[in-house]
Amino acid sequence: MSEKAKVIFQPSGRRGEVEKGSSLIEASRQLGVDIEALCGEKRVCGKCKVRIEEGSFEKFGVVSSRANVSPWQEEEGKFVTPAQKKEGFRLGCCCKIQGDLLVFVPEESRAGKQVVSKAARDIPITWDPAVKCYYVEVVEPTFEHPTADMERILEELYRTHGLKDLRIDYLALRKLPARLRGKDRWKLTVYVWMDQEIVRVLPGDQRLNHYGMAIDIGTTTVAAYLCNLTTMQVIDTVSMMNPQCKYGEDVMSRITYHMMNKDGLEKMSDDMIQGLNTLVRQACEGTHPPKKKNKGEDTKEKGKKEYLCLNPNDLVDLTIVGNTAMHHILLKLNPEFVGLAPFPPVIHRSLDIKARDMGVSINESAYIHVLPNEAGFVGADNVGVLIAEEPYKSDEVQLIIDIGTNGELVLGNKEKLISSSCATGPALEGAQLSFGMRAAPGAIERIKIDPETHEVDYKVIGRDAWRSYSKPEEMKTKGICGSGILDVLAELYRSGVILKSGKFNPKQKSSRFRRSPETNQPEFIIAWKDETSIGKDVVITQKDIRQIQLAKGALYCGCKLMMRRMGIKTLDKVKIAGAFGTHVDREKALIMGLFPDCALDKVVSVGNAAGDGARAALLNRGKRQEANWVARNVEYIELTVEKDFQQEFMQAMQIPHMKDEFPNLKGLVAEDILKQK
Amino acid sequence: MSEKAKVIFQPSGRRGEVEKGSSLIEASRQLGVDIEALCGEKRVCGKCKVRIEEGSFEKFGVVSSRANVSPWQEEEGKFVTPAQKKEGFRLGCCCKIQGDLLVFVPEESRAGKQVVSKAARDIPITWDPAVKCYYVEVVEPTFEHPTADMERILEELYRTHGLKDLRIDYLALRKLPARLRGKDRWKLTVYVWMDQEIVRVLPGDQRLNHYGMAIDIGTTTVAAYLCNLTTMQVIDTVSMMNPQCKYGEDVMSRITYHMMNKDGLEKMSDDMIQGLNTLVRQACEGTHPPKKKNKGEDTKEKGKKEYLCLNPNDLVDLTIVGNTAMHHILLKLNPEFVGLAPFPPVIHRSLDIKARDMGVSINESAYIHVLPNEAGFVGADNVGVLIAEEPYKSDEVQLIIDIGTNGELVLGNKEKLISSSCATGPALEGAQLSFGMRAAPGAIERIKIDPETHEVDYKVIGRDAWRSYSKPEEMKTKGICGSGILDVLAELYRSGVILKSGKFNPKQKSSRFRRSPETNQPEFIIAWKDETSIGKDVVITQKDIRQIQLAKGALYCGCKLMMRRMGIKTLDKVKIAGAFGTHVDREKALIMGLFPDCALDKVVSVGNAAGDGARAALLNRGKRQEANWVARNVEYIELTVEKDFQQEFMQAMQIPHMKDEFPNLKGLVAEDILKQK
Repeated sequence: MSEKAKVIFQPSGRRGEVEKGSSLIEASRQLGVDIEALCGEKRVCGKCKVRIEEGSFEKFGVVSSRANVSPWQEEEGKFVTPAQKKEGFRLGCCCKIQGDLLVFVPEESRAGKQVVSKAARDIPITWDPAVKCYYVEVVEPTFEHPTADMERILEELYRTHGLKDLRIDYLALRKLPARLRGKDRWKLTVYVWMDQEIVRVLPGDQRLNHYGMAIDIGTTTVAAYLCNLTTMQVIDTVSMMNPQCKYGEDVMSRITYHMMNKDGLEKMSDDMIQGLNTLVRQACEGTHPPKKKNKGEDTKEKGKKEYLCLNPNDLVDLTIVGNTAMHHILLKLNPEFVGLAPFPPVIHRSLDIKARDMGVSINESAYIHVLPNEAGFVGADNVGVLIAEEPYKSDEVQLIIDIGTNGELVLGNKEKLISSSCATGPALEGAQLSFGMRAAPGAIERIKIDPETHEVDYKVIGRDAWRSYSKPEEMKTKGICGSGILDVLAELYRSGVILKSGKFNPKQKSSRFRRSPETNQPEFIIAWKDETSIGKDVVITQKDIRQIQLAKGALYCGCKLMMRRMGIKTLDKVKIAGAFGTHVDREKALIMGLFPDCALDKVVSVGNAAGDGARAALLNRGKRQEANWVARNVEYIELTVEKDFQQEFMQAMQIPHMKDEFPNLKGLVAEDILKQK
Repeated sequence: MSEKAKVIFQPSGRRGEVEKGSSLIEASRQLGVDIEALCGEKRVCGKCKVRIEEGSFEKFGVVSSRANVSPWQEEEGKFVTPAQKKEGFRLGCCCKIQGDLLVFVPEESRAGKQVVSKAARDIPITWDPAVKCYYVEVVEPTFEHPTADMERILEELYRTHGLKDLRIDYLALRKLPARLRGKDRWKLTVYVWMDQEIVRVLPGDQRLNHYGMAIDIGTTTVAAYLCNLTTMQVIDTVSMMNPQCKYGEDVMSRITYHMMNKDGLEKMSDDMIQGLNTLVRQACEGTHPPKKKNKGEDTKEKGKKEYLCLNPNDLVDLTIVGNTAMHHILLKLNPEFVGLAPFPPVIHRSLDIKARDMGVSINESAYIHVLPNEAGFVGADNVGVLIAEEPYKSDEVQLIIDIGTNGELVLGNKEKLISSSCATGPALEGAQLSFGMRAAPGAIERIKIDPETHEVDYKVIGRDAWRSYSKPEEMKTKGICGSGILDVLAELYRSGVILKSGKFNPKQKSSRFRRSPETNQPEFIIAWKDETSIGKDVVITQKDIRQIQLAKGALYCGCKLMMRRMGIKTLDKVKIAGAFGTHVDREKALIMGLFPDCALDKVVSVGNAAGDGARAALLNRGKRQEANWVARNVEYIELTVEKDFQQEFMQAMQIPHMKDEFPNLKGLVAEDILKQK
């Protein structure tokens, strides 16, 4: 019998044992990891670049070493730079596994770009950016009027724009004399931050050259909106996996990483900042003409004017939201205490930090505005949601659920607002399940189970035809993504495969039900091996079901306890924020008990509201004040210390909920509704 | 006949031709440069470290190359580090001269530490520093009151000290959680800048640990005062040569260096900043117990409490003054335009710059306050003089003369103040003369010439007995320092060696008068070779006399033109600032026509008033406002464009001045007075 080695792929966390001697690409297929390999392992495309991690990863029980793969091949040098080689990068197709490994698959090597639903929505924002630009013309110095460059401009800014007592950033000042005497002699565009500080000077009239970025740092995904600060137009939306995922999937595991590793905080922060710089660079590159292979064409293209051709230096403002843990880790603020009762953050209020002090490469004199935190883990991201949705201006009692790896809840209206957070975990986003995956081609997004035969029909992203209308090998199924998760749970229950408690029905006799040959745990086969591109059955295990139940239970219980605290029984509106909200079948979510009863037409998805809030703060400085106000005026509820928390939580995990809790579903219990469909 | 090579030593500027094959130490002796050589060239003390410069120095007509000295000797490696070797450092005793050279002698290799007269004076300052420290005790967070660390402290600072709307420096914030939970749990000392920003937090009560530094950057000398910001005590005064001297002796030559060298500004600024860091380090080291060779003793010493044991991180504020060129070069602001008519600076107003942005290693969150500039070259140094002397509060019409390499003049009282600058050059400080030198042992500081015999009697620094009471070899004369310069001129004139015009009297027959064997120019021997430690006669040449005349003429003419502009004929007070003022014989200065007539008891020396101003701004924030106000309310006069400037200047160069210009000298012409003495 051949020897096996443990291999774990990050950031997906897919893991398993594979035969020593197999290539990393082979292992990735066996374990269902999507590594790009365009050339079919002919060692010519260089797409399968991965990083072999070094060290002891106790959480996974492996000691990974670069010595545990076969030696470096000459061909790899064509694609892996010497700097990358030093960092441990290899081509997956060239590496044979010789021992336990932790392998990091960078975003660009992952097959099938994620379908990120973090596009900017059209929310109303009044134009009043923190950085404004002014055009001034000054007169040349003379013996009669030999005033200094700076005072010359300040006099003009006061005379024509009423600005006074301005200071200037030291690095901007250094450029002033040359820019004032450039080809546009004595004419300048001056960029002023908060009517207080000059952060950039450019020769001539460049008032349209005025850009900024709003960034939402999620525990799992980071999204960024590049905006023109004069026209308010969203030029581009770019996103990436949070590069901290390799240190832990949720906020608590990252805080633990910091506590267990001397320079853990530094490392996580630096990775995040590098990530932000990548996003900035990507967004800027998107405004340049595409690189042509033919040099002649390239030259012609340059003449065209439709390309903005921005570089990071053109970004003069940046706003950031994120939950308290992401906020603290980004800023290298000790996140240890916000993870310990009574969960005090290091700071609530918003911060204005010089980009250069953080190491973020936008304009060197620009500030970064980090929005304020509420309390506990409910941080600047929720403040972003609040200033985008403005429940504090509403008569209706709203429940706003931001479903991410960390769930955040707000309840109330203009009279009172309360917030709380619950550890939903990433299950609802498709992570942490045996075959959970991101919303990428091959991911199951809809599912139906025949109550009689227990036959499964499903649809995957990237293919219109359902399983029943396709040949098995056409499906190329890989796993289940967030939007399919609730479907699976509902269908398993409706068809009697699982019970109210979430346990597999011991009486059921489905041929798809079995005990795992590896773990001996009960599991249900969603897709057979021959329908998949990963060479193995896609299953859902008892543990998976438990994960989903925990997530939905945490959410439901949180909502319930908050309503009790507010003394209300009904909701006027439910808003679902986050990527999950845009894909989910609202009715099924309601029936499965993700949140308390509400008229279906009052349940709306508000997309990435946190990101919208960051954008609102970028384009309107009043929103920054509003954010600081609301952050201190939302009452934070620590759910875990609420009366009956455990009991409520246990109850909320069951499927489905009691009849009397769903008057909007016409008095039927969820069970009946499901059966009708 | 043996071949010669041109050798120039910097920063003194001493130059001459020496025989090829001689060592650098021999050359330094011949040229009167004071290089330390404790071991007598036995290659064992390593004190004679010098740097061989590379490049073409057109100003001096030499092309210097490291190849122009003999090869590296193994012994040098004992004292010259590999990094220094790379920079061109050698031991002077090991290098034989093989071609033209420009040699830089670092401060530590110069024999005889300069007698710097930049000690802090006792001027009245009201305590109100820009950075204040507050002690707070806060309560521990609870579930009922889980406020963040920052807000917890802010609430307390508001409650107990009335401070509000404070922000916090990003780097100080990072340290907050740990410092709050240190051994002095929930007790903190908080350092607040200008009632606006928290720049440091320390555990427990550390209100006496509160330090700052005031720095005066002169063209030639940099002086720094380390102060306790709570007690206002001056802990120490440290000083050094301005490290930029190697790029040029006066402001114009440094501006030229910037214009001729792509990274000239960067280099000069970086050298200055490194210099500031050296001063900070030196001042801090002075607060530690001296290092003992015996380890046992060292341990005992540590127990004593009288040592403050500061480190640069303890400095939370720093103020800087300097003329406009020093200001611009330090801050890397293009100094080109302030050197060109109509001489506009880049900025007038004061600047508050994060020390970390400038690369100055004091506390990382601290600000540096750079005082404002007036106009032209009259910069923050003169503003320092003004806020120290406060002529704008006086009824008396004052003339304040700050004599440095660049002379700065202020005239007026509380009704009106005008200022101007004049290029005195460094002659009055003893530089640029054939045998000019700093005020160090061996420098002639007093002189008498017998009108009959023309015999010279003189006194040197470091020896009480005059020449006439000493054996020749006891004098160890090296040159003439600033305080001896006016003596020389006056005595040469009194004894008839020179005429009113400054020219050598062609009729005189002194045996000390001769034509230089090297240059064939007329010169007068002050000290014979056997009285010196440099192995050659100390002389004063026609060119030297011309330099002194130019300096005093520039000053006198400036004063005269300013008085004309103000419409006044008499002065109530003359204040002489700068090191020169503390050593000079006021009567002789008046007679020689350094400044217009004034009652002798109204002529006072005010020491380093610029540095005092920097200290006042460090200890009193109101002085910063006052500085900005006065900088914009002193009228700057560009002397060179005044009517009759050339004529007045030419006249002012003569010695002595007309009878009617000196009513205070009892109606006698200066000539008579000198003869009476």
